[in-house]
Amino acid sequence: MEYRKIKDDDDEVQEDNDVASDLESLKGKSHTVASSNIALATLGGGGGSTERINWKRKGVVTCALTILTSSQAILIVWSKRAGKYEYSVTTANFLVETLKCALSLLALTRIWKNDGVTDDNRLSTTYDEVKVFPIPAALYLFKNLLQYYIFAYVDAPGYQILKNLNIISTGVLYRIILKKKLSEIQWAGFILLCCGCTTAQLNSNSDRVLQTSLPGWIMAIIMALLSGFAGVYTEAIIKKRPSRNINVQNFWLYVFGMAFNAVAIVIQDFDAVATKGFFHGYSFITVLMILNHALSGIAVSMVMKYADNIVKVYSTSVAMLLTAVVSVFLFNFHLSLAFFLGSTVVSVSVYLHSAGKLR
Amino acid sequence: MEYRKIKDDDDEVQEDNDVASDLESLKGKSHTVASSNIALATLGGGGGSTERINWKRKGVVTCALTILTSSQAILIVWSKRAGKYEYSVTTANFLVETLKCALSLLALTRIWKNDGVTDDNRLSTTYDEVKVFPIPAALYLFKNLLQYYIFAYVDAPGYQILKNLNIISTGVLYRIILKKKLSEIQWAGFILLCCGCTTAQLNSNSDRVLQTSLPGWIMAIIMALLSGFAGVYTEAIIKKRPSRNINVQNFWLYVFGMAFNAVAIVIQDFDAVATKGFFHGYSFITVLMILNHALSGIAVSMVMKYADNIVKVYSTSVAMLLTAVVSVFLFNFHLSLAFFLGSTVVSVSVYLHSAGKLR
Repeated sequence: MEYRKIKDDDDEVQEDNDVASDLESLKGKSHTVASSNIALATLGGGGGSTERINWKRKGVVTCALTILTSSQAILIVWSKRAGKYEYSVTTANFLVETLKCALSLLALTRIWKNDGVTDDNRLSTTYDEVKVFPIPAALYLFKNLLQYYIFAYVDAPGYQILKNLNIISTGVLYRIILKKKLSEIQWAGFILLCCGCTTAQLNSNSDRVLQTSLPGWIMAIIMALLSGFAGVYTEAIIKKRPSRNINVQNFWLYVFGMAFNAVAIVIQDFDAVATKGFFHGYSFITVLMILNHALSGIAVSMVMKYADNIVKVYSTSVAMLLTAVVSVFLFNFHLSLAFFLGSTVVSVSVYLHSAGKLR
Repeated sequence: MEYRKIKDDDDEVQEDNDVASDLESLKGKSHTVASSNIALATLGGGGGSTERINWKRKGVVTCALTILTSSQAILIVWSKRAGKYEYSVTTANFLVETLKCALSLLALTRIWKNDGVTDDNRLSTTYDEVKVFPIPAALYLFKNLLQYYIFAYVDAPGYQILKNLNIISTGVLYRIILKKKLSEIQWAGFILLCCGCTTAQLNSNSDRVLQTSLPGWIMAIIMALLSGFAGVYTEAIIKKRPSRNINVQNFWLYVFGMAFNAVAIVIQDFDAVATKGFFHGYSFITVLMILNHALSGIAVSMVMKYADNIVKVYSTSVAMLLTAVVSVFLFNFHLSLAFFLGSTVVSVSVYLHSAGKLR
């Protein structure tokens, strides 16, 4: 009942056309949700178990994201070892979005069968709800286009290092846009997460990144901001309607993802697809990678719904370290001293994030 | 007056011959001192200014140690650039101890002239007070002898990396021997200090240290424990008698330092000294280095008296980073990405040490 009430409040806000004020209002909403959760919790037994279910759900989606991201990286290494990418990446991305859409619909049909169709789980939507959904997909498309240009200024290993700026940009935008507070200890943890991830990736060529020219730095920072903004904005969209079924929200997000990726196919791979066909170069690993990307994508949405961007960043960072450890056994990787140091720093950072929680 | 009372209590404990119980009793003492400080502080204006003077003194000795350690490293780089060490290191160490002894005596004569001779600043001592003073000097001598053997298992850059184990051993022994508590956040900071210092020193050859054989690791750990134990034990000795003048305590520490270094000259450099003379190969830089080592040694004692081993470790770690930054200007050093990452981790660690203070 609490949730319904919030949703009704929410609908009234729909009149505002300004995205900034939508986000502003989200802050108020999330406070309301938090306080209603507390209200539920203080109502006794039932509230305690709601709290517990929330925690359990948060834990499950976070673990799923970590494992999926980690196996994603392993599949990439595997596919690289098996040979170069022969397929067009844009068609694979399009299939990932299509699969996510299909999986969301599948989940919804099950829910409709069990619970019936309600306001919260019906697929039909309003312009007010749907108008912001293309924005994250557009931001990612823009970021991916920029990626082609940054390689004129930075080499691939350097780009891997600079990508860790995403961690800082996500933290800063999370603070500014979602207006959520981290404690000083948690900020310290977040800076350490960025340092630890970068340290773990250090190799003998890493110092080259310091010679990056000013345009290279500016592009890296813009890309980090775009990526951080897309993540934080997705969280804002999904959390704006706490009672709205996540599968409906995902469905609409992914529909726009499909549309933007269709545009990308036309821009980048039209000739290859026209001459060699849509599925040229696909292999068993490609199919596995598409499946994995689709599931990770859904896990990211779930983390945004039930946890937040900070948890997402921690989860994918820990996944990076897990990948390296698993690769030791799978591919005879050698772990460097820098990796051990970076992993220790990341572990301490995870501890600080939990120890530093604002009361 | 409070301090005198504590000293009297202290003298009664002198009957115990067991070092362990001496250390155990120290714990009680330091609590008494702390509570009497609080008692003084709560007495009003006078107490507040005592507190302030303590803080000021702690700050001054810590800064002095940081600057001296940092300039020490710069002098070492300078002397290496000027050519190889031509003098025997043992004679230089002996002169360092002698100079420290002389400076302590000089300070004492000034104090005697101003305040007169009291129980706290008289040079004469008892067997009970002095019996533990040779222990740190003996531990350092033993550690320095081990240093010759560890190079059979680890190369010099690898040894520099392994020396960071000192940080962890100091923290652990500080906890076990001095029974002083660090908060969990401070422990997190201490682990980060070790990781950050090691990261800052990483270079393309650092990974070789991971191939260190078991005997190499064991020796490195023993050396770290010896060094940590010597430091913590010195603090125990100096803090056992809070009212005893630090210059008297230093005098006795350094007298034993002179004796042990005289032994080292005979063991290691007898032939060179006998044929080429005591001062063979001394240059202007050598004299500067001896002066700097003597002053740093005194600063270490002061930090042990007015702060503790944890502050000492932080101070010398920050000094290492300062040295690198100064070397950029003096010697055209290039700072690596690893250095920036390590420095950031150390900076966060310093913040955590202060933010995590137990209330």
